Amino acid sequence: MALERPRGTRDFPPEEMRRRDYAEGVVSSVFKSFGYGKVLSPAFEHTELFRRKSGEEISEHMYVFEDKGKRSLCLRPEETASVCRMFVQDLRSRQLPLKLYYHCPMYRYEEPQKGRYREFWQTGVELIGSSRPESDAEVVMMACEALLKLGLEYTLNISHIGVLRGLLSEVGLDEVGQDKAISGIDKKGADGVGDLKGGDALRSILRLEGGAQAMKEAMRMLEGHEKPLTALEELRKVSVLLDSGKADYRVKLGMARGLEYYTGMIFEVRVAGLGAQDQVCGGGRYDNLIELFGGPKTPAVGFAFGFDRLLEAMEQQGACFPEKDLDVYVACASDAVRPDAQRIASDLRRGLEGRSVELELLGRKLGKALEHASNLKARYAVIVGPDELKNESVTLRNMDSGEQRMVRITDLAKLID
Amino acid sequence: MALERPRGTRDFPPEEMRRRDYAEGVVSSVFKSFGYGKVLSPAFEHTELFRRKSGEEISEHMYVFEDKGKRSLCLRPEETASVCRMFVQDLRSRQLPLKLYYHCPMYRYEEPQKGRYREFWQTGVELIGSSRPESDAEVVMMACEALLKLGLEYTLNISHIGVLRGLLSEVGLDEVGQDKAISGIDKKGADGVGDLKGGDALRSILRLEGGAQAMKEAMRMLEGHEKPLTALEELRKVSVLLDSGKADYRVKLGMARGLEYYTGMIFEVRVAGLGAQDQVCGGGRYDNLIELFGGPKTPAVGFAFGFDRLLEAMEQQGACFPEKDLDVYVACASDAVRPDAQRIASDLRRGLEGRSVELELLGRKLGKALEHASNLKARYAVIVGPDELKNESVTLRNMDSGEQRMVRITDLAKLID
Repeated sequence: MALERPRGTRDFPPEEMRRRDYAEGVVSSVFKSFGYGKVLSPAFEHTELFRRKSGEEISEHMYVFEDKGKRSLCLRPEETASVCRMFVQDLRSRQLPLKLYYHCPMYRYEEPQKGRYREFWQTGVELIGSSRPESDAEVVMMACEALLKLGLEYTLNISHIGVLRGLLSEVGLDEVGQDKAISGIDKKGADGVGDLKGGDALRSILRLEGGAQAMKEAMRMLEGHEKPLTALEELRKVSVLLDSGKADYRVKLGMARGLEYYTGMIFEVRVAGLGAQDQVCGGGRYDNLIELFGGPKTPAVGFAFGFDRLLEAMEQQGACFPEKDLDVYVACASDAVRPDAQRIASDLRRGLEGRSVELELLGRKLGKALEHASNLKARYAVIVGPDELKNESVTLRNMDSGEQRMVRITDLAKLID
Repeated sequence: MALERPRGTRDFPPEEMRRRDYAEGVVSSVFKSFGYGKVLSPAFEHTELFRRKSGEEISEHMYVFEDKGKRSLCLRPEETASVCRMFVQDLRSRQLPLKLYYHCPMYRYEEPQKGRYREFWQTGVELIGSSRPESDAEVVMMACEALLKLGLEYTLNISHIGVLRGLLSEVGLDEVGQDKAISGIDKKGADGVGDLKGGDALRSILRLEGGAQAMKEAMRMLEGHEKPLTALEELRKVSVLLDSGKADYRVKLGMARGLEYYTGMIFEVRVAGLGAQDQVCGGGRYDNLIELFGGPKTPAVGFAFGFDRLLEAMEQQGACFPEKDLDVYVACASDAVRPDAQRIASDLRRGLEGRSVELELLGRKLGKALEHASNLKARYAVIVGPDELKNESVTLRNMDSGEQRMVRITDLAKLID
């Protein structure tokens, strides 16, 4: 009986991995160009780590299991908690700010649907140790730069969770009540507020969306509301830096984000062509999380790309991916020369650093072998034959033009461009 | 309370990830140069996949859990079974041979010890669809070439599982009995044979080790033993190809390998400096596995590197790793110029494609900022000051020589080598 992969998971064949590796490389290069270094945490953690603050939404959908010592473990559903745990456990004595990035799979037991998988990848950054608006602006600009390099068109929305929290606290909600209201707003927008008494300023703010003009409008609307206005002022400073970095953003104060750990600026990026799953990036400031995990109070800000959605968006938007390239295919004119062919292929790989050389491995006759070389889109074929070998030579065939000639084995590497 | 990572797992900070990414890149390049393409399977599979043939040893140490639909899942303990499952499910209609490689974490619930972790990485190849000795030779030579490129000294041992199985069947053991005996031999060498009647030829063969001479000796010893001699003859053909590829090997017919799915040539690579955990690579031919998983009978051969051990061996043997390189650090002479500094850093990153530019993010005074730049081993510092800005200029400081001068912002990128 044939076995299948578990529901909601995927296998990635070579042509897809090439695309994924390409996109990962582009995004990593951007992160590195800002001085960020890659980190990796285990695929599973003590379950408590994620129960502490990742929010109910995530907590309900974790893959939880017990190890033989009856400790509760779970596959990571997101990476920020793990990076904070890593910081507290090992990195807290390093000079700040710490600039970290990651690219790894996450696991959530959700109903699979278009663009949503049980194993999915996130690529993200965490900037630990700076509370300044330049830090918020930096991570937002990194996300934009990465999307630009991937060739994606996008919409960037920014907000500050303190605006919502401030307004919700004004109508009498404690932190737990606020979390609940924010979760409602995250799902239903302004309707998520329900029938809160005195929530009128809140409802108007939630509906506000736009550029620099919306920021001014919000300033006016929040006059006299001290807490939300302080938060908005922080956001305004970030927006000034984004202006100077020529990042195109929209202020969207009704944005809530599913994670409960944000404390300051928050943002999201959406792309066209992905339908309901159009959010490819989310992030924000989380100044309390490291302390919650037992570390010193340390400000931090970060974001994560939904890597699978980036890939899908690139395909939807017709992005260019590099093609597989086979430089040389080595075929044999007879069985007796196989050891020579293997040696020639080896020498050629060493002479052509970084190029690919495939050897015929099924004992195909020459005609079939050249057909296979053509299917593999080889640029050249080297044909090893007993007569040519006597003269230390082989036949070199240009697969595009069909032209072929006898060349000395020692000249082979320099004849292949 | 601070949380810790689960026992037997590791976090990788940036300096370790740089080393790991470097080594992975070197090994991947070698695999690609042979025309292999990367694949990736899910981190968990239906448990049955691994129960079928990965062997008792692995099966006992799996992380098994149930999903909410009560299906038994487990974290992958090795990758060959997953690749075969992927082949049967999705890739069977492709043109053969298929040349695949992978690099991903594996999970085994074992007692952690030096060089042994519960989450560990394997980097391996599977060559599917060819039964020819050139295929066996190719994968062995790929392993050797990768080790060479990593700068590692190693010992390569080759054998053929058919020699052991043939001799064990001669003394009357069925397949299950053979599996058990082979597992004993894998653990204890010749002593693992116990008091099998008529096992004398077996014991002599098990003790035989060496180069071309040992191969001849074995040929002589196995005269009249039909099955083991046929297996040895297959191994001899592979060894001829390895000779022609100048791969240095030792014939070690007592080698058993822990996995029960091998059917032909098997090999292992050991390196100096790792103590008891000195095996960095193991592999061989498995011509029955794909059929066992419900696919058509398809020959295959492959190997896996213990990636963590490769890294450890590189450190032990004093290999060279690339250092982190920060090209430019951008500091501010006053707070008012911060938006300008952010813009200058952004423009510089675009002008210096592929280089890294870090912006000061803690509001440090200039002296402290330059000290931090020096700690980060920045090659240049750019100092943004209000007076220079009026002339569209900044100060460029060579961090090695301490030399600094005023330069126009538009000239900055071309002054940084």
